[in-house]
Amino acid sequence: MIHPSANIGKNVTIKDDVIICENVTIEDNVYIDYGCIIRENVHIKKGSFIGARSILGEYLFDFYGDKVNKLHPLVIGENALIRTENIIYGDTSIANNFQSGHKVTIREHTTIGRNVRVGTLSDIQGYCEIGNYVSMHSNVHVGQKSKIKDYVWIFPYVILTNDPTPPSNELIGVTIDSFAVISTRSVILPGVHIKEDALVGAGAVVTKDVQKEMVVVGNPAKEVCSVRKIKNKFTGEAVYPWRNNFKKGMPWEASDFEIWIQEIKIIEE
Amino acid sequence: MIHPSANIGKNVTIKDDVIICENVTIEDNVYIDYGCIIRENVHIKKGSFIGARSILGEYLFDFYGDKVNKLHPLVIGENALIRTENIIYGDTSIANNFQSGHKVTIREHTTIGRNVRVGTLSDIQGYCEIGNYVSMHSNVHVGQKSKIKDYVWIFPYVILTNDPTPPSNELIGVTIDSFAVISTRSVILPGVHIKEDALVGAGAVVTKDVQKEMVVVGNPAKEVCSVRKIKNKFTGEAVYPWRNNFKKGMPWEASDFEIWIQEIKIIEE
Amino acid sequence: MIHPSANIGKNVTIKDDVIICENVTIEDNVYIDYGCIIRENVHIKKGSFIGARSILGEYLFDFYGDKVNKLHPLVIGENALIRTENIIYGDTSIANNFQSGHKVTIREHTTIGRNVRVGTLSDIQGYCEIGNYVSMHSNVHVGQKSKIKDYVWIFPYVILTNDPTPPSNELIGVTIDSFAVISTRSVILPGVHIKEDALVGAGAVVTKDVQKEMVVVGNPAKEVCSVRKIKNKFTGEAVYPWRNNFKKGMPWEASDFEIWIQEIKIIEE
Repeated sequence: MIHPSANIGKNVTIKDDVIICENVTIEDNVYIDYGCIIRENVHIKKGSFIGARSILGEYLFDFYGDKVNKLHPLVIGENALIRTENIIYGDTSIANNFQSGHKVTIREHTTIGRNVRVGTLSDIQGYCEIGNYVSMHSNVHVGQKSKIKDYVWIFPYVILTNDPTPPSNELIGVTIDSFAVISTRSVILPGVHIKEDALVGAGAVVTKDVQKEMVVVGNPAKEVCSVRKIKNKFTGEAVYPWRNNFKKGMPWEASDFEIWIQEIKIIEE
Repeated sequence: MIHPSANIGKNVTIKDDVIICENVTIEDNVYIDYGCIIRENVHIKKGSFIGARSILGEYLFDFYGDKVNKLHPLVIGENALIRTENIIYGDTSIANNFQSGHKVTIREHTTIGRNVRVGTLSDIQGYCEIGNYVSMHSNVHVGQKSKIKDYVWIFPYVILTNDPTPPSNELIGVTIDSFAVISTRSVILPGVHIKEDALVGAGAVVTKDVQKEMVVVGNPAKEVCSVRKIKNKFTGEAVYPWRNNFKKGMPWEASDFEIWIQEIKIIEE
Repeated sequence: MIHPSANIGKNVTIKDDVIICENVTIEDNVYIDYGCIIRENVHIKKGSFIGARSILGEYLFDFYGDKVNKLHPLVIGENALIRTENIIYGDTSIANNFQSGHKVTIREHTTIGRNVRVGTLSDIQGYCEIGNYVSMHSNVHVGQKSKIKDYVWIFPYVILTNDPTPPSNELIGVTIDSFAVISTRSVILPGVHIKEDALVGAGAVVTKDVQKEMVVVGNPAKEVCSVRKIKNKFTGEAVYPWRNNFKKGMPWEASDFEIWIQEIKIIEE
C-alpha cells in the first residue's frame, strides 16, 4: 500500500507488503525490502537500503491519544544500510553512510552523524547526540541525553545511564569524548564524562569521570594506567591511542592518521 | 484474515495484514496496527492499542507436537499501549493501563497487575507474578518464578535468576518487595529476597537477602548504608524512600504519598 | 509468494504471507508460520517448524553492492523448532533437533551440532563452531570465532568476546570445553579457554583460562574451589560435575551418564 502522495525517485525497488504512508520522499536508487512500514513524513535519501520489516517514522507518544500522527519528520541520509526490523522514530536525523544490524531501536530527538554503525539489538533511547564515525557493537543501550562525540567505539552490552537517583525526573546524560573506547558490558553512571582516548575495561562500573588517555577497570572502576602502556600481546607494540593503529572504515584508511589530520588542518586553514 | 468467530466491538481499527484467529474478543475502541497476529482465545479489552506486528496468544510448547493450539487464554486489560513486535503467550493476564516498549516477550502463566510498564526488549520468562505500578525499563530479564510486588522499579539489563545450581530442575525465583529499586545491570541470584524500599546499586551481583531500606553495591553486593543517607547531589535533600519525592504516573501524583496513603486507609476502614 | 523453483515435500503447511525465493527445498512435514521470508538456497529438513516472520538465508554483506544474493546456502536439520522472528544467515548449517526462542540472530559461517538450544534474543555473530547438546539461555552473545564444544550450558546475558585490544582486526575467539557451565551475565575475555566441567559464577569477568573442574567468581574472576565442593542447599549432595545429576534432554536421560558413556564406548570399540 503506497499512499498517492509519496514522492518516489528513479530506480527505486519496493518489495512486497511494504506500507508507505502520506508525505514520504524516497530518493533514487533506494531499495526497500519486504514488509517495511514507512510512516508519515519520512525522507530516505539516495542509495539507501531498508531491511525487511523495518519501521521508519515510528509514532511518538503524542500519537496514542487521538491516533493521529503529528509532524515528526525522520531523515535517513544517503547510502544507509539498515538491516531487518529496525525501528526508527520521527524527529530524528541520520547523516550519510549509516549502517545498522538487526532489530535496532532509535527513538525521537536523536541526531546521528556521518558513517555511524549501530549493532544488532542496540537501543538508542532518544534525545541523544551522536557524532561522526561512531561504532557501536551489538546490544548497546544509550540512555536519553547521552552525548557521544566523533570516532568513539562502544562494544557489546555497554550501558550509558542517566538517572543519578532512580526513579527521578532529573536525567543527566553521559558524555564520551572523541576516540574513547568503551569495552564490553561496562556501565557508565549518570553524568560521567569520559575524555579523549580513554579506555574503559570490560565489565567496569564507571562512577567518576575518566581522564584523557586513562584506562579504568573494575566495579567501581579505578584508574590503572595510561592507555600508552598497553601492548599488543603478540607484537609487543603500543596499541593506543588506537587511531595510530586501526584504520578500517576510518577516513584515514588509505593513509595514516597523522598524515590525514595534517591534511585536514591545511584544508581548514 | 479475520476468523468469522471473532467478536469485535464498536469503533475498532484493524490495519492491513492483521490475522485474527478463532474465538478472539476485541472490545470497543481498540486499535490494532499493521501485521499483528492475534491467535486463538485472546481477549483485548476496550481502548487498547496493539503495536505493529505484535503476536498475542503465542503458542505454548504443547502446540508443537500436533500443531493444534490448546486452550490457553490471554487477557489484555483496558487501555493497554503495547508497542511494536511484542510477543505475549497464552495463559497470561495483564490488568488495565499496561504499557510496553518494542520487542517485549512475556511468556505463559504470568499475572501482571494494573499500570505496569515494561521496556523495549524485556523478557518475562513465564510463571511470574508482577504487582501493580511496577516499572521495568529496557532489556530486563525476569526469570521464571519471580515475584515482584507493587511499586517496584527495575532498570535496564537487570536479571532476576532462578537456578541455584545450574543446570537443575529446582528453580527458586527472586522476590522483590514493594517500593524497592533495582538499578541498571544488577543481577539477583536465585531465591534472594529484596525487601521494602531497598536499593540495589548499578552492576551489583546480589547473593543474599537485602533488608528493608538498605543499599547494597558491588560484586558480591555488600550493604553500604540506609537509603535515607542518600542525598540529591544538587539540592542536598534526602531522596529515598523515593515515594516521598517521585510521583509521575503514580496514584498519588495529584497529591502526596502520605496524604494519599492516609486516604486509602480511611477508605479501607 | 512462492517461487516456482521451490522443491516442496509432502504434508507441508505454509501459512499466509510467506515468501519463498528461488532454489529452496522444504522437506516433508515442515510447518512455516505466517510471514516468514525464506531467501534463496535454503534447505529445511523434514519435520521442522519455522516460527512466524522468521527470515532464513539472510543476506551476507556481499548482497548490498549489486543487490544480488550470491550462493550462501543454509541448511536447517530435521525437527527444528524455531520460534518467531529468528534471523539465520546463509553459509550456516544447523544439525537435527535444534530449538530456539524468539528473535534469535545467527550469522554466517556458523556450524551448530545436534540438539542445540538457543534462547530468546541470543545473537551468534558468525564464524562460530558450536557442538552437540549445547544449551544457551536468553540473550547470550557469542562473538565471532567462538568455539563451544559439546554439552556446554550458557546462561542469560553471557558474552563471549574476541578482541583483545579493541578496536582491532585480530580477533581471537573464546573456547569452551565440554560440560562447562557459564553462569548468568558473565563475560569471557578474548582467547580465554574454559576447560571441561569448569563453572563460571554469575557476573564474573573471566580474564584468564579456567582449569578443569574449577569454579571462578568475581571481577576479575578468581578460582575459589573445585566444582566438587558445591553442594545442593537442600539435600547437601554434590552437584557437579552436573552430568551425574542432570539428565533432562540429554542422551542419557533414560539411564545415567556413567552407564550411557560405557555403552557408547562399547559401541565405538
